Amino acid sequence: MVNVAVLGFGVVGSGVAEVLATNGAHIDQKVDDFIRLKYILDVREFPDSPFAEKVVHDFSVIEQDPEVSIVVETIGGAKAAKEFTERALRAGKSVVTSNKELVASHGYELLQLAKEHNVSYLFEASVGGGIPIIRPLSQCLAANEIEEICGILNGTTNYILTRMIRAGLSFDDALKEAQANGYAEQDPTADIEGHDACRKICILASLAFGRHVYPDQAPTQGITGVRLADVAYAGSCGKKIKLLGRAIRRADGAVCAFVSPHLVDGENPLAGVEDVFNAITVKGNAIGDVMFYGRGAGKLPTASAVVADVIDAAKHLGKRKYLGWGPGGAGAAVPPEDVASQWYLRLERDGEAVCAAFPKAERLSRSDAPAEELAFLTGEVLTRSALEDRLSGHSPAAAFRVLD
Amino acid sequence: MVNVAVLGFGVVGSGVAEVLATNGAHIDQKVDDFIRLKYILDVREFPDSPFAEKVVHDFSVIEQDPEVSIVVETIGGAKAAKEFTERALRAGKSVVTSNKELVASHGYELLQLAKEHNVSYLFEASVGGGIPIIRPLSQCLAANEIEEICGILNGTTNYILTRMIRAGLSFDDALKEAQANGYAEQDPTADIEGHDACRKICILASLAFGRHVYPDQAPTQGITGVRLADVAYAGSCGKKIKLLGRAIRRADGAVCAFVSPHLVDGENPLAGVEDVFNAITVKGNAIGDVMFYGRGAGKLPTASAVVADVIDAAKHLGKRKYLGWGPGGAGAAVPPEDVASQWYLRLERDGEAVCAAFPKAERLSRSDAPAEELAFLTGEVLTRSALEDRLSGHSPAAAFRVLD
Repeated sequence: MVNVAVLGFGVVGSGVAEVLATNGAHIDQKVDDFIRLKYILDVREFPDSPFAEKVVHDFSVIEQDPEVSIVVETIGGAKAAKEFTERALRAGKSVVTSNKELVASHGYELLQLAKEHNVSYLFEASVGGGIPIIRPLSQCLAANEIEEICGILNGTTNYILTRMIRAGLSFDDALKEAQANGYAEQDPTADIEGHDACRKICILASLAFGRHVYPDQAPTQGITGVRLADVAYAGSCGKKIKLLGRAIRRADGAVCAFVSPHLVDGENPLAGVEDVFNAITVKGNAIGDVMFYGRGAGKLPTASAVVADVIDAAKHLGKRKYLGWGPGGAGAAVPPEDVASQWYLRLERDGEAVCAAFPKAERLSRSDAPAEELAFLTGEVLTRSALEDRLSGHSPAAAFRVLD
Repeated sequence: MVNVAVLGFGVVGSGVAEVLATNGAHIDQKVDDFIRLKYILDVREFPDSPFAEKVVHDFSVIEQDPEVSIVVETIGGAKAAKEFTERALRAGKSVVTSNKELVASHGYELLQLAKEHNVSYLFEASVGGGIPIIRPLSQCLAANEIEEICGILNGTTNYILTRMIRAGLSFDDALKEAQANGYAEQDPTADIEGHDACRKICILASLAFGRHVYPDQAPTQGITGVRLADVAYAGSCGKKIKLLGRAIRRADGAVCAFVSPHLVDGENPLAGVEDVFNAITVKGNAIGDVMFYGRGAGKLPTASAVVADVIDAAKHLGKRKYLGWGPGGAGAAVPPEDVASQWYLRLERDGEAVCAAFPKAERLSRSDAPAEELAFLTGEVLTRSALEDRLSGHSPAAAFRVLD
């Protein structure tokens, strides 16, 4: 018998309880033992829930129960979640989480704490919802030196961009629709400003390259600056605008991670990833490119990833599942200024003067463009610094990278 | 120190040696030990290879060397490969393979043998080349009851179909081009008749549903019957012809597996999988659909998957990596006759009479169609038996399922 406690009975936590109940027989067979949900920690009562009698309000009940060997943390945030995670690990319990904020900001120290106490700290659900990515990256691609990771990591922004592209909605209208459909929070800042994608690419970068990359080391630009004009210009050259999180190991070994809107060619598999779906491509020096695709959020998909970690933790009780990375610091990631790419530029004035600085520019057109508007692809691959030089003080209305 | 022997120094075997050499430091760090390639078994000598001094010709040298704990079998086929695999397992060595024929035809007994000797038998590279699928299916999706697996499992046929669709080449010309490019064997039978895809879907079905499904239980139709006319008709309704391997668990719990050409809607992510790429979609009851995409063959991608298994075997020495399924038999898989789908039919004569039996038929058109030719989608979802009834003896020139 393996006893599990779930912290936080929100969307993901209740999904975990549901998956454990629905697929219990199948899961027990996988573990070759019985998994039992013993406690649910929440400040609220759930009198109408089938799990009502498991609800407790005091974490120390769980902490002090030697029968509990696995704690599932689905509280979110980095306060109570961090405290309870540390206390659970110190009490010799493995911890499984979907909390990207906590892993991105404190993953290294929590992984160290897990190591000291010979337990597992697992977080498959923190990136890509139900899409298997953490385990494939750490195990299946273990024979590879990872060169680059590039992904559509946030379902909300991908939904908004899809609706702008396919239905011609403005950013504001697409956001309202996403909120009405439950795909965006009432305060959508973390999604639309790219913070959520930033946390996820930091986790992937840390895992792939071996040192903790913190969110403040990954420059992040969201999608609030994307206009229908940009969608139209991208479409005119067979491309789509996607918010990408990228982590790159440069030839000199330096790592950089960043999040920003990109123009993605229609032939690239990432261009076909629509609505709330996520996809992550990984380039390894032996395997080439592989892509993982699926629902990046949602109750049951995310719970499915959490429960897979519970199964793994249960199979490794007493012999710790290795997963981790080294400490971060100033040298763990460099800014992406030196990452060269072609650029898309849209100018609302001075377009001709700016365009003249790019002799290989490919002019773009769209219907109903204002007279003063001018958009083009640079035609040349440039670092951001080289781009700034060419712009010599001009400030484009939009400047997005073009994915190779 | 973990000593490894590679059996068969062909494309994959030499790729394994290369990956172990190139990424050695990285791999040793993953295992927290040193992986050493000690022997290469082959009937040939390789005097110019950097690995020349490791070559041996007698398997018993490897079998009797207690230092060798992991054997990589990349011989292929089910004769010498089977004998050496059995002898290695009996000698207490873990075996890693890319041999889909052997796993599909003897996986259950070899897994049992591995279990008896407390060693691992791993075969990530047997399906999807370098694409991680065996481990994600058995571990990351462990919390799910798997409902269906559907994949483009053979790169050669996908290349041929892509060239027919995009360049308008006939099947024969596309096959010749594939051979010229090294994407098809001189005897392409196993690929174009679907046998290779059949072995792979059998392995996936066995793993997902828990009982060994043998290739003779999975009806298989290759792509030799696909004509440019079919490509054109599919294109006229926004679809592409793809060779799919499918494994389905029906509502009554029965499993069926089969391989056949399908019409796939352009919006389906599988439609965008081109050239020699493979992709596998998995539907689980919690996760919904996930897709894994990448190079399904090739020296380094396949070697990358083999070496990932070597790393896993090395980390589990003495404590066996569990992976497996139960015995097969008559009840393990039923024919797909009862799997209902919409159908695409092309007739070279009697078209009107046949079409009249399908009141919801959607007629298709193409340019330059002969006067007698008629093609349509049934508009209704029908089992194969129901389709046969409606055809009442008429024999269509093409009858392909339409993927939901």
